Amino acid sequence: MTSPHTYLNHHRERHLQELSEWLSIPSVSALSAHKADTARAAEWLAEALERAGLEHVEVRQTAGHPIVYADHLHAPGKPTVLVYGHYDVQPVDPLHLWTTPPFEPQVRGGKLYARGATDDKGQLFLHIKAAEALLAAGELPVNLKFCIEGEEEVASPNLPPYLAQERERLACDAILISDSSLLEPGRPSICTGLRGLCSLELTLRTAATDLHSGLYGGGVPNALHALVALLATLRDEQGRIAVDGFYEGVPELTADLRAELAKQDVDETMLQGELGLQALVGEAGYTFVERTGARPTLELNGVWGGFQGEGTKTVIPKEAHAKITCRLVGQQDPAQVLERVARHLRAHAGPGAELAIAPGEQAPAFSIDPGHPVLQLAADAYEAAYGTRAIFTKDGGSIPIVAAFAQELRAPVVLMGFGLPTENLHAPDEHFHLDNYDKGLQTIVRYLELLGSQSPA
Amino acid sequence: MTSPHTYLNHHRERHLQELSEWLSIPSVSALSAHKADTARAAEWLAEALERAGLEHVEVRQTAGHPIVYADHLHAPGKPTVLVYGHYDVQPVDPLHLWTTPPFEPQVRGGKLYARGATDDKGQLFLHIKAAEALLAAGELPVNLKFCIEGEEEVASPNLPPYLAQERERLACDAILISDSSLLEPGRPSICTGLRGLCSLELTLRTAATDLHSGLYGGGVPNALHALVALLATLRDEQGRIAVDGFYEGVPELTADLRAELAKQDVDETMLQGELGLQALVGEAGYTFVERTGARPTLELNGVWGGFQGEGTKTVIPKEAHAKITCRLVGQQDPAQVLERVARHLRAHAGPGAELAIAPGEQAPAFSIDPGHPVLQLAADAYEAAYGTRAIFTKDGGSIPIVAAFAQELRAPVVLMGFGLPTENLHAPDEHFHLDNYDKGLQTIVRYLELLGSQSPA
Repeated sequence: MTSPHTYLNHHRERHLQELSEWLSIPSVSALSAHKADTARAAEWLAEALERAGLEHVEVRQTAGHPIVYADHLHAPGKPTVLVYGHYDVQPVDPLHLWTTPPFEPQVRGGKLYARGATDDKGQLFLHIKAAEALLAAGELPVNLKFCIEGEEEVASPNLPPYLAQERERLACDAILISDSSLLEPGRPSICTGLRGLCSLELTLRTAATDLHSGLYGGGVPNALHALVALLATLRDEQGRIAVDGFYEGVPELTADLRAELAKQDVDETMLQGELGLQALVGEAGYTFVERTGARPTLELNGVWGGFQGEGTKTVIPKEAHAKITCRLVGQQDPAQVLERVARHLRAHAGPGAELAIAPGEQAPAFSIDPGHPVLQLAADAYEAAYGTRAIFTKDGGSIPIVAAFAQELRAPVVLMGFGLPTENLHAPDEHFHLDNYDKGLQTIVRYLELLGSQSPA
Repeated sequence: MTSPHTYLNHHRERHLQELSEWLSIPSVSALSAHKADTARAAEWLAEALERAGLEHVEVRQTAGHPIVYADHLHAPGKPTVLVYGHYDVQPVDPLHLWTTPPFEPQVRGGKLYARGATDDKGQLFLHIKAAEALLAAGELPVNLKFCIEGEEEVASPNLPPYLAQERERLACDAILISDSSLLEPGRPSICTGLRGLCSLELTLRTAATDLHSGLYGGGVPNALHALVALLATLRDEQGRIAVDGFYEGVPELTADLRAELAKQDVDETMLQGELGLQALVGEAGYTFVERTGARPTLELNGVWGGFQGEGTKTVIPKEAHAKITCRLVGQQDPAQVLERVARHLRAHAGPGAELAIAPGEQAPAFSIDPGHPVLQLAADAYEAAYGTRAIFTKDGGSIPIVAAFAQELRAPVVLMGFGLPTENLHAPDEHFHLDNYDKGLQTIVRYLELLGSQSPA
């Protein structure tokens, strides 16, 4: 038997050929015209898992696109690792901006171009081939499970019920997801936090009809004045959210975490220039990276009311509107935050203002201690492949399924990305750097080996 | 010779016939298709003035529609009265909502229906026939001038230059305008104040592009937060405008004026119900009538920025907008108020916000002391015709030409209306109550007689 690395080197061309074959299937989950293609990509995946040596391969039909399961459970006493990924891809419009057709993969300048090359078929493929190589070498040192969906690009409607239903079958010691990016070329990172989200829409009414400002101005409530006065109470002068209890569940930043986040060394002056900002502003006492990654926020996404046309209209608007989203961290409870924001709005609405508040999305934050052994081993594995230890970051965005996995399976989630932020995901000319393809395979093989040297949690 | 009243009674049918003839000319100033009709209405007017016995009748061409002048200056040592009015009318859409065609005048239930019946041909006609009656009786006791335009419904673009150019010819001791309403049937009123106006549009920018709230939320300025915080500073908690110097030139309300305004006895509870308001709000220490008639205001007419569509969009908007108008009273200078509001906005814009302020319209307020003899005599004249003395009101709206007349000719303006607020001006089925036609003639004849018994100012 040959070593996994020798195996991967030896079969590299065949593997890239296989990946290209998969990438040529237009599994666009959002478009019903591609429903059969998406099913074909699931079948292709199931066969690839089977060929790699995995067992119990199953294509589970759902109300939408199938979920593919496979496992290899022959390492008693060793940790169980669950790999999540997705085989569906984004639509390709505008097609004319692609240098080569999105479903005719092509390698140019060390990069593989195709829709799905980095998001997520290309990254997910690394896990299949790492497993194949370890199995071929007779060295797969962990129990391995795959749970791959085809609806990530359409908000995963059928995944949470599947997780709940198959909780026992999916039980594991670590969840491994490669659907993100390095910090920059040669600088691996592991995301240890994603912010949660909640949203609401506010309608404020003061009168049955719009009123003429000549006849009524100064004597009746103006919905816009009432709205701006109300919305202005949401933040204080230090940039803190002034809603009672808003920060409940927000962890204090430890000196260690601040030091870790500082490693991202964002050049705030350069960033300000790039975004065309006069100033970077935010909660007093925190850096930009802390504010956007490790602190919650409340943002007005839209505000409107009254006359928006050309010229002057002397109207006193009867109603005004606002859309608000909060990004949450730590243990903040989305439903509770929504309720508290709503209570704040009701308590601060001026006389004559009637409020209607429609709650919207809710998703909890995801957070993991970088000191957790499975994260430290992941950083070790990156170091072995890249020569640089991964740093631990906090992302300000929200990926609801990550929190869903963590909560449903009660296992640590390792967000181990091999893409780059510049690889045009969701855009024309999506691509994947083959350098990271190779280093990704090395990292994953090394990671599974390191995990296999541990006792299960 | 017969008395003016006998004359008016005797010729009433002929006069109404003449008015109907004039009303049947569709002098819609806003529509170029009616340009010839509008000119024809001016010619008709000139002939009517001539027939009434006025002299120096002139149809002056302008860049738009003609201005008609006439006078009768044979009362040496007596006051000179200038009558202003307009012979143009509003468009008639939606035509299908008219019970009878707008340019086929018809009397139904004591009301004359036609476009222009109350606004303003019908009311203006009273002055022509009052003059005719007084001249026929050999009793016109004042010097009388007519200055009648055909562009009132399109903002009078050619009137102010005409006033400036013809200042000497138009010199007078009182300007008489009948283009407004009684308070309600049987309750005459004289408007002694109109609010001025100034407007601006504000654009607030914080970034070169909209930003994603996941990546940047909490770390960058949000144009909407900056806007609501800024706009919320414009009013204080007592409902006062918090702009430095805003109230400069605003007269204190005297006990007399407050008593006069209180005569309007607005039922605030009923008004609140009619407008669908939860509360009447405004500047502390003033009644509704005072707030809307005798106090200035600053109103947000429109505010917008960010996402207004359905659902959630986690955007941090790069810019936000507001439209603001102020209603002014007393000696407030529109340009100075605009400058002070702009200065306030610049001084209170938070960090990271860049402002662009576009000034809009400017018109000074009009105000006259109800104690002025020409107003007291007007109230006496109303009392003679209606059996009720006219009360003095302050209107919250703005009619820029009134202030223009007062300023250019330096004479008191008497706003002596005979319409009713319910007569559908600018709407289908416009009409004029013939009861007020008759009482209006009596009031004007009496008023000219009373003025004639005075020495000139």
